[in-house]
Amino acid sequence: MSPPVLIALLTDFGLTDAYTGVLHGVIAGIAPQVRVIDLTHQLPPGDVRRAAFTLWQASPFFPAGTIFLCVVDPGVGTGRRGVALVWEDRVYVGPDNGAATYLVVRDGAPLSYELTAGEYRLDPVSSTFQGRDIFAPAAAHLACGLDPARLGPTIQDLTMLPLPNLGHTGRKVHGQVLHADHFGNCLTSIGRLREQGDSLALEPWLRQAPAASLPRAGLQVLLPGGMALPLLARFADAPRGEAVAYVGSSGLLEIGVNRGSAQEKLALSEGQPVRLENRG
Amino acid sequence: MSPPVLIALLTDFGLTDAYTGVLHGVIAGIAPQVRVIDLTHQLPPGDVRRAAFTLWQASPFFPAGTIFLCVVDPGVGTGRRGVALVWEDRVYVGPDNGAATYLVVRDGAPLSYELTAGEYRLDPVSSTFQGRDIFAPAAAHLACGLDPARLGPTIQDLTMLPLPNLGHTGRKVHGQVLHADHFGNCLTSIGRLREQGDSLALEPWLRQAPAASLPRAGLQVLLPGGMALPLLARFADAPRGEAVAYVGSSGLLEIGVNRGSAQEKLALSEGQPVRLENRG
Amino acid sequence: MSPPVLIALLTDFGLTDAYTGVLHGVIAGIAPQVRVIDLTHQLPPGDVRRAAFTLWQASPFFPAGTIFLCVVDPGVGTGRRGVALVWEDRVYVGPDNGAATYLVVRDGAPLSYELTAGEYRLDPVSSTFQGRDIFAPAAAHLACGLDPARLGPTIQDLTMLPLPNLGHTGRKVHGQVLHADHFGNCLTSIGRLREQGDSLALEPWLRQAPAASLPRAGLQVLLPGGMALPLLARFADAPRGEAVAYVGSSGLLEIGVNRGSAQEKLALSEGQPVRLENRG
Repeated sequence: MSPPVLIALLTDFGLTDAYTGVLHGVIAGIAPQVRVIDLTHQLPPGDVRRAAFTLWQASPFFPAGTIFLCVVDPGVGTGRRGVALVWEDRVYVGPDNGAATYLVVRDGAPLSYELTAGEYRLDPVSSTFQGRDIFAPAAAHLACGLDPARLGPTIQDLTMLPLPNLGHTGRKVHGQVLHADHFGNCLTSIGRLREQGDSLALEPWLRQAPAASLPRAGLQVLLPGGMALPLLARFADAPRGEAVAYVGSSGLLEIGVNRGSAQEKLALSEGQPVRLENRG
Repeated sequence: MSPPVLIALLTDFGLTDAYTGVLHGVIAGIAPQVRVIDLTHQLPPGDVRRAAFTLWQASPFFPAGTIFLCVVDPGVGTGRRGVALVWEDRVYVGPDNGAATYLVVRDGAPLSYELTAGEYRLDPVSSTFQGRDIFAPAAAHLACGLDPARLGPTIQDLTMLPLPNLGHTGRKVHGQVLHADHFGNCLTSIGRLREQGDSLALEPWLRQAPAASLPRAGLQVLLPGGMALPLLARFADAPRGEAVAYVGSSGLLEIGVNRGSAQEKLALSEGQPVRLENRG
Repeated sequence: MSPPVLIALLTDFGLTDAYTGVLHGVIAGIAPQVRVIDLTHQLPPGDVRRAAFTLWQASPFFPAGTIFLCVVDPGVGTGRRGVALVWEDRVYVGPDNGAATYLVVRDGAPLSYELTAGEYRLDPVSSTFQGRDIFAPAAAHLACGLDPARLGPTIQDLTMLPLPNLGHTGRKVHGQVLHADHFGNCLTSIGRLREQGDSLALEPWLRQAPAASLPRAGLQVLLPGGMALPLLARFADAPRGEAVAYVGSSGLLEIGVNRGSAQEKLALSEGQPVRLENRG
């Protein structure tokens, strides 16, 4: 028996309205035996980059075959395409707006299908809630074993987002703040970092730069305004209330405050430059 | 085999306490095989009207047989009755406080049972958390196939909420703002609207008014203070940051701001009058 | 057939990031048939006491055998141990930081295992997300029937939190505010209370004090600042907008405002003293 297929939901619908529940209802009607996991419904409204990041971050921890139904869709009702993107290990279903960018860069080009087949949509299709009318039905039918080629024609030229800044010159690595998480820890584009004897290996997570190796001793993180943070092995190595840089759970450089919020304490915001360098 | 029965949860319990998890736990103890979907737990505390609307909006997208366990219960511990309302396609379990009003108006009178049978309750029954002690057990037993007549006597005279304002005189349709959703889009009581050649058909969603037909050209939406918005086919047809009226995913007239919040930009609030009219 | 095992999740991860979804993904990969319930993911960040309370409050309403995967882990990456605690009726998996304290006091000493076995962890183990790397895999393997002794050695001397204040002298019961819930109702440490003819029986919920019995007539609750509230049978017995004390759904004395927030109206905060006494 093949393992049961999972659908993981990822939206900016929030949890106060019926919208996320309706996705579950539509899926349950088509695919009553399929397990559905709420990855998150609280992506910032319309933030396609954040959706792309979340897919990149979470997808390796889901079983092979998981269908990621990702609806962050500021362009709903316009001409933007709906797509199913099929890799060996996973599937993306959602708008063709760049949310799959980081998966494409990491996992390679998928087999891509435009969602045009009327028989796998609800009828009528609204102009404002295509998560319900097009994407959830497509994901549910795929979870039931539908050949994705039945959903529509293969396509090329997927919409891609720009990649986060990441580069290095000699012993300096340049990156940017990506966003703050629920705890106020600020994730950066500097990664993936891995301890390697006396060095720190940099293996760019989205191929924005060649790999590099930095001597571990004396590494510091420079923030806007000139503040320098030590790079410690563990978050909890910093004194309570103090800011610290460390390698986070996705291999990216993070800036945190032990039992506090780095976002608040340091007033960091998305896009600000950060630098990792040896000032020993 | 009959399709598996679903329980959909709809409460104002929020997600910070154990309350919603406890509903799941109670159901899992009685009906371990039954699928449970969280429709929402973030209805505004005590807002029975919003519960009624959410049930109206979401229920058509759930499989036949779904049991809606709806606990918005500002009168918990008073004499208000607990009920199971059974339609051909769905069941409501919760307080008799009007939360089922819009289902009753749309779907007709249900078979109605008062939840009095002690053997389908937890023991003891608290005076403050009857979702746990009475409603979740009732829903779980129904999901396992219990005849609803075992839960208590049939009753009449369900508690009903007033219906939202909706009416028309000639070419003007009068309605009201219902509430804003997570995106700041403001839903109104004007609906359901459907394009019909050169006209817009109005088929009142709760039978508050006779059906009507309006010439499509030149239709505008008038807000309090005299602001007029164009009625466009799609949300995304408006310039970024601009307010627009459109027919939303439930067939109701909505007021939105492309990539912004209409609630914030226009300072709309529940109950304010809105008018759809031809000013050509 | 033994009843299906449940995993109940309890974290401070919030719902905006991928973290909670990743726990689900890891569990689904190891234990695809196991049902997973989100008890809450919105515990205040790092608030181990609140986790302990929530486990105490919710656990009796979950089926026997439920595995509580509880990750509130301000000490992640330090030397704090990871544990599986096994009672006859339930299991705790998480850090050994006191979150199981109230279960231990109520249910007795569990069989306790330190989570050291590498084969039941993800590889590599991060220093910041051991919910993903250690605790979720352990819970999932236990749900599949793994003998907990395979996870690591038995241990003693679990970390324990101080218990909330509760005591009585003659006809006065002294306690404290624990926290406010989603509705603004303030739970206190005075309990568990049970009506017993003309008296109110006090059976200390965490054995902080001997049992007692208070004449029911004229009982009042004294708040900081000298405010006195009547102790009513039901929340809803108070006039709308008025503060009231009552016995809540967990048997603890609560302070609420009928259709309002006691936390806001009375400015109560965690740790403040409250007193139940007869002033007749």
